Amino acid sequence: MKIKGKHFQTIWLSEESDEIVQAIDQRKLPFVFEILDLATVTDVYNAIRDMAVRGAPLIGITGAYGIYLALLAYNGNKLNNYLDEVASYLKSSRPTAVNLAFAIDEVVKTCRNSTIKDAVSKALKKTTELKEKEVEYCSRIGNHGLALIEGIYKEKKRPVNVLTHCNAGWLACIDWGTATAPVYKASQKGIPVHVWVDETRPRNQGARLTAFELAEEGIPHTIIPDNTGGHLMQHGEVDLVIVGSDRTTVSGDVANKIGTYLKALAAHDNQIPFYVALPSSSIDWGITDGMSEIPIEQRDPSEVGFIEGWAKNQIISVRLTPEKSKTANYGFDVTPARLVTGLITEKGICKADKKSITTLFPEKKYLWQK
Amino acid sequence: MKIKGKHFQTIWLSEESDEIVQAIDQRKLPFVFEILDLATVTDVYNAIRDMAVRGAPLIGITGAYGIYLALLAYNGNKLNNYLDEVASYLKSSRPTAVNLAFAIDEVVKTCRNSTIKDAVSKALKKTTELKEKEVEYCSRIGNHGLALIEGIYKEKKRPVNVLTHCNAGWLACIDWGTATAPVYKASQKGIPVHVWVDETRPRNQGARLTAFELAEEGIPHTIIPDNTGGHLMQHGEVDLVIVGSDRTTVSGDVANKIGTYLKALAAHDNQIPFYVALPSSSIDWGITDGMSEIPIEQRDPSEVGFIEGWAKNQIISVRLTPEKSKTANYGFDVTPARLVTGLITEKGICKADKKSITTLFPEKKYLWQK
Repeated sequence: MKIKGKHFQTIWLSEESDEIVQAIDQRKLPFVFEILDLATVTDVYNAIRDMAVRGAPLIGITGAYGIYLALLAYNGNKLNNYLDEVASYLKSSRPTAVNLAFAIDEVVKTCRNSTIKDAVSKALKKTTELKEKEVEYCSRIGNHGLALIEGIYKEKKRPVNVLTHCNAGWLACIDWGTATAPVYKASQKGIPVHVWVDETRPRNQGARLTAFELAEEGIPHTIIPDNTGGHLMQHGEVDLVIVGSDRTTVSGDVANKIGTYLKALAAHDNQIPFYVALPSSSIDWGITDGMSEIPIEQRDPSEVGFIEGWAKNQIISVRLTPEKSKTANYGFDVTPARLVTGLITEKGICKADKKSITTLFPEKKYLWQK
Repeated sequence: MKIKGKHFQTIWLSEESDEIVQAIDQRKLPFVFEILDLATVTDVYNAIRDMAVRGAPLIGITGAYGIYLALLAYNGNKLNNYLDEVASYLKSSRPTAVNLAFAIDEVVKTCRNSTIKDAVSKALKKTTELKEKEVEYCSRIGNHGLALIEGIYKEKKRPVNVLTHCNAGWLACIDWGTATAPVYKASQKGIPVHVWVDETRPRNQGARLTAFELAEEGIPHTIIPDNTGGHLMQHGEVDLVIVGSDRTTVSGDVANKIGTYLKALAAHDNQIPFYVALPSSSIDWGITDGMSEIPIEQRDPSEVGFIEGWAKNQIISVRLTPEKSKTANYGFDVTPARLVTGLITEKGICKADKKSITTLFPEKKYLWQK
């Protein structure tokens, strides 16, 4: 998608050197637009852990590039062991997102039992394939979700109000985004759409990233505190909720940014459709109870006690809380399948239950039956 | 309650001059503790509008002092007209809180058809009475709510986890608070209690004021983003929700700080008791449908786009959002009575329905039957 009118993806191999991966540093948006050079596996680990790159699909591709960069630096003689060590190290950078493990495993599988020279080229080829597939999948998610927006537009004959939480936009992916893809597709088709953007405390990915994306694409949008969505839904100001997912169980339970569950409850209470847009790589085929089986990471409490903003021509961190007070910072919550109207995937829309999901993805049978 | 070990109320007549009212400037807490002098009716209007004083009960008493200060400055000859004009002006400073209109009307009623000299002393006497009544009512609310906390403690034999939203603490009242009064009473009785404090965007009254209160009183507490409560409730980390109310209908619909409705939904979904603590002065006896009959004020959108915090030894305002993005700022939402377990009032606890409320307050019959 566009930044200042120029097309960007979130991560790419440098044009200067094929030993350097470049990515948009998302920690500084929307205040400063900067490109980050990733030259080592440690650079990749840090970029994921520190959320310079974030969003389940992007984390996956970044991890895949991490294997490639690790192989460039390899000079030992037990390649398979090395691959396992690097994979394990990279996976530990963020525990919740299933895409990270998925993408890393795909690349490692391809490289195993190769010469190092072959492994390097296979890793890059596989990463590029995975990346192109992510873009293609997001585009398809957009087309499937577009039908929902178009349906509402035809019925109501006024701009369609979509509410989204956090950033499941193109910045979380490679391009298009998941939750935002239907919005971009609708806009490109000339359907008027307005997005309510949850600011998404504590890291404000909505206010900082989703709003930035939408602004750069020229999509009408309004940033709201996370407290606001319920009130808007009570008053008919939301037609459709679309969020992303960091991990969804085969039974349709959805782990996503903390606060998603509250919006799902409000949508359910007001009979507003609540959709989750996700590539099938975010589906965890091995688990069925999101509440008990998905680990919820607790992040640094200082992310709640301090916030970054723009003042005096720089990014400044200010303290929000009394010095004597503790803070807590849970990264995600799990929205039970019963509150989810449907999943928008690259293969189409299905209900959030095991039967519908497995019917849409029969080729994954080997995963959910093991 | 205490600040740095010394007892304070939120508003009082200056010890130096009985023509000056003093109040804690709540805009600067928890970073700076400052006392504000209110010498004119305009000072009072601005203090309410700019939220130097806030919280339904405190706004009411501040408004009452406003009539007193206006009378001190009066030198015309149509006192009743003047009282009406001043009352109307003061009421317009915040439209949602019913206490403001209630307290102002009480003082005006007392002063009507008096000489100016009598009116001045009557206004001060009435204001002091109303103020003492607020303190007494909050104390009683605390005692009634204490029983709920004590019951949970006896059953679970571990610290009781209370979640609260915004600040319905003593800073919102004169002393004790409404939602916090049961917590303070429990703590004084030696019952271990821990409070989850919703930070309460956009103005962060939870992170700034409730946390400050609890810290100064030595009550264990943890500040969380507004997104977090649902997750905590899903995982058994919340025993009881207590919030305040800016206006509650005689049928039990509760207008309170934006986001309250979302917590009520989550409490309901997880079978966690959800109580609203309020003096009967916050009950609007004349309306039965909160959703359609309570006006929800929209505040300055810049309260969402900018935030104040502490850095470099000063309060600094930083921008949180892209310059091209709009923000919206709804002040309150309405929690339907069906989600409210009960109301904790100065006369005891009742269900959130017309029959229970009117049975508890038969003396208000003239109001709900008109």
